[in-house]
Amino acid sequence: MTRPPNLLFIMADQLRADYLGCNGHPSIKTPHIDALARRGVNFTRAYCQAPVCGPSRMSFYTGRYAASHGASYNGVPLRVDERTLGDYLRPLGYRVGLVGKTHMKRDDDGMARLGLDPDSSRGVLVSQCGFEPYERDDGLHPDQLANPDLPYNRYLREQGYEGANPWHSVANSAEGNDGEPLSGWYMRHSHLPARVQEAHSETAYTTNRAMDFIEEAGDSPWCLHLSYIKPHWPYMAPAPYHAMYGPEDILPAVRSDAERERPHPVVEAFMGHGESVEFSRDEVRERVVPAYMGLITQLDHHIGRLADFIEAKGLRDDTVIVITSDHGDYLGDHWLGEKELFHEPSARIPMIVVDPRRGADASRGSCDDRLVEAIDLVPTFTDLAGGDSRTLDHILEGRSLTPLIRGESVADWRRYAFSEADYAWRPARMELGLAPDEARAFMVTDGRWKYVHYANYPPQLFDLARDPGEIVDLAHCDDCRTVRGELEAALNEWFRARRLRTTISNAEVERRTGTAHKRGILFGAW
Amino acid sequence: MTRPPNLLFIMADQLRADYLGCNGHPSIKTPHIDALARRGVNFTRAYCQAPVCGPSRMSFYTGRYAASHGASYNGVPLRVDERTLGDYLRPLGYRVGLVGKTHMKRDDDGMARLGLDPDSSRGVLVSQCGFEPYERDDGLHPDQLANPDLPYNRYLREQGYEGANPWHSVANSAEGNDGEPLSGWYMRHSHLPARVQEAHSETAYTTNRAMDFIEEAGDSPWCLHLSYIKPHWPYMAPAPYHAMYGPEDILPAVRSDAERERPHPVVEAFMGHGESVEFSRDEVRERVVPAYMGLITQLDHHIGRLADFIEAKGLRDDTVIVITSDHGDYLGDHWLGEKELFHEPSARIPMIVVDPRRGADASRGSCDDRLVEAIDLVPTFTDLAGGDSRTLDHILEGRSLTPLIRGESVADWRRYAFSEADYAWRPARMELGLAPDEARAFMVTDGRWKYVHYANYPPQLFDLARDPGEIVDLAHCDDCRTVRGELEAALNEWFRARRLRTTISNAEVERRTGTAHKRGILFGAW
Repeated sequence: MTRPPNLLFIMADQLRADYLGCNGHPSIKTPHIDALARRGVNFTRAYCQAPVCGPSRMSFYTGRYAASHGASYNGVPLRVDERTLGDYLRPLGYRVGLVGKTHMKRDDDGMARLGLDPDSSRGVLVSQCGFEPYERDDGLHPDQLANPDLPYNRYLREQGYEGANPWHSVANSAEGNDGEPLSGWYMRHSHLPARVQEAHSETAYTTNRAMDFIEEAGDSPWCLHLSYIKPHWPYMAPAPYHAMYGPEDILPAVRSDAERERPHPVVEAFMGHGESVEFSRDEVRERVVPAYMGLITQLDHHIGRLADFIEAKGLRDDTVIVITSDHGDYLGDHWLGEKELFHEPSARIPMIVVDPRRGADASRGSCDDRLVEAIDLVPTFTDLAGGDSRTLDHILEGRSLTPLIRGESVADWRRYAFSEADYAWRPARMELGLAPDEARAFMVTDGRWKYVHYANYPPQLFDLARDPGEIVDLAHCDDCRTVRGELEAALNEWFRARRLRTTISNAEVERRTGTAHKRGILFGAW
Repeated sequence: MTRPPNLLFIMADQLRADYLGCNGHPSIKTPHIDALARRGVNFTRAYCQAPVCGPSRMSFYTGRYAASHGASYNGVPLRVDERTLGDYLRPLGYRVGLVGKTHMKRDDDGMARLGLDPDSSRGVLVSQCGFEPYERDDGLHPDQLANPDLPYNRYLREQGYEGANPWHSVANSAEGNDGEPLSGWYMRHSHLPARVQEAHSETAYTTNRAMDFIEEAGDSPWCLHLSYIKPHWPYMAPAPYHAMYGPEDILPAVRSDAERERPHPVVEAFMGHGESVEFSRDEVRERVVPAYMGLITQLDHHIGRLADFIEAKGLRDDTVIVITSDHGDYLGDHWLGEKELFHEPSARIPMIVVDPRRGADASRGSCDDRLVEAIDLVPTFTDLAGGDSRTLDHILEGRSLTPLIRGESVADWRRYAFSEADYAWRPARMELGLAPDEARAFMVTDGRWKYVHYANYPPQLFDLARDPGEIVDLAHCDDCRTVRGELEAALNEWFRARRLRTTISNAEVERRTGTAHKRGILFGAW
């Protein structure tokens, strides 16, 4: 038997699928990611399960939809008994490490109830979403919250940078004419270079730490979740990346006046958020998007550096590489900033899978436009590691991508992809006067049509073929009644088919079916 | 502040709602339960959340629908981090004990993963569904499975009964002409008296043990889940109850030939089960149902004995008593035996709540036909114990009955009740050729109409007002399209509103809404 491959699971944060060269961006430079796409499969129609960091990541790590794992928003603890990737890979002999961000919130109440010490070895794994926290860094360290012992801050100090929180004052701030820091929290500074040298930036440092992990892991199989904070805000790139792009390089905002004139009530409430108001201004887009692009090109550079490192270590042929993102960024499209809703800039994600082994030659260099979901990675990794994800189909809600990667014909690939939102936590909910558990929305797409069900509000429907910009809401179009009904039915079916009986496998159910009599329980016997 | 009341939570097993005198049965004698109903509120339209022991009980104990707690059938472990009644009552100063059955299956994998020792004090509570197992006895002990140290078997031996498993050979067997045991597992023996003396029968013994608990609990507040196995099969009553009723006393079978001529596919598969075939024979009904009725009257006698005991202890005015059941019993109605599907004999349950305190005088002796669900008891008990179930509305899916008990007007009581089935485990699934996770069905009723959604099969619709026997399936009736659509929509809405974000309260969401900026996270700022 051949050795199972290492799994390098790279996630960017807030990286739009269309801001990559291999996905058609006309001006961005991502040569290393593009090269990886040529070495693997580029899934061009991949969706995150929730367009916001925490719940999206919990779906990536559990292989389950957000409503199933329950961590529906940032800061919602993941139930202590939700299984994660590490639960599946460690028994297969893998070291499962983390460098970077997970957005995992520990379930303190659940742990206390069960007497699980968060500092015990089990407790650490459960607290860290199943990853060995080789270096966890969730990447947002405003002065109010910053841990004085943050390893990255220690590192910056070792490089000679000063201050209580150089993450902010150096890596995420620019410098004014008089040497004063200009905070990267303010987008008006996004055209300026960060005060940090590129080689000491977060992206560079995170990459270094990934190399440390790989070096240390040696010959036994590993899975490394390398989870970059960028190009997530603060939108502040170090030189030379801050100046690599200009307003002429950015994609035009996808929006129309009609969207503001007759907005959907929930979208309208989001349009009222500060980030949406700002990103609706051209001045903001022209200053911020070039920085966002610079951060992506910088990320690309370090992914290339890491690929070279892997090659130099002789691991290239033993290492499967996945490149994805937790969600996108509106960047002013649809008069919106940030993410959370379901337009393509927000809900669609990059998903590139490079399997260097011969079995994947059939798909090498191809684009695959079948519907893929973030939750597919747990079964995919499990299968790649030598497990059998089918035995977990009472828990996992994603589908293994391995047959697609091997170029096998798959007759019954999924017809629909889903994504969810719990916007209870945003001012939009207050604006709409909703209770916390009323602020829910659900997206379903069949690739051609996208349907959004909002609790308490009418749905939305877009025709992605004729209207790829998702400008014209067809929910009330009489001609679309059939497709609307079909997608609503698919959504309802999806709810009913949720995997919630997680404590017993389907194979075990098969074994037990109709066996009560064999155990002497003779009900109904005359 | 007055002392919170004791909570005596009595459950019968497989007791149909309509086999009680207070619920209109023309011949059964249940004078003590009827007397309790006169002292409290009789909820005449109460539904279990799953018409089978395990999942129904897990809903009773968690206050959550079956698909939410996940223990969808007998033998499916309840996830280790599902909260149960004890989690809510113990912090309020209650001792929370169990005498009898829970059908709880421990989540061994979940406990092992978290390092929770099943024998630790925490482990025992989690293993026992949150109850202190004062005496747990799930009540089914065929020779193949019987624990030699079963306390009830020890007790029987102390009373002079012999054998390795007197639960079977004495308490649940009759005697032939030559002194040979005739197993109660065979319904052809149901007209004979059990070999056990009534005073040593399971129902008597269980009642004794409840008294022991109450005696021992003393003055601090307690909740006792007194959970009888009877009138669940084996249908075998001790003298004189075995002969108290005859064929002339049983309710006629509610069924029609039309049901067999054009059956719903899933119902048809259930009609093929052995218990359905047997119960469709008059001979079986005429022998079994009188025994079933005898067991109920015996149960009633012991509930009366317990009520007297409570009065003698001076606890009557301090003790809230609830009498309910986990589900009903088809007893041949609709050509079916057992339970599992959603006709009234199976899904409707008795629900009598006796609150002796002055605040409940307004409802005393009344019948209340508002829709009540099994999951309502956890919030009700929590509120009665001095807690506030509203703070748990991110977990609990039931509604507190306390305003109804107090006779307060409630403007927005629930419009629909729900019940679920996972029949993966039954031969019906094999007959239908379904995979384990395709064998699901869901019921919704608004009190007037009952709608059943089956995965993979057409729905059913009954008009409970015009057709209380649920004989005529109106699912395909054109006139009923509107109501069918309304109930289907209610079911879909119910799925979407499931409480799955259990790790953070709605009040905490309110506190956090829109606060990121206050923590220094200034996204979208110019």
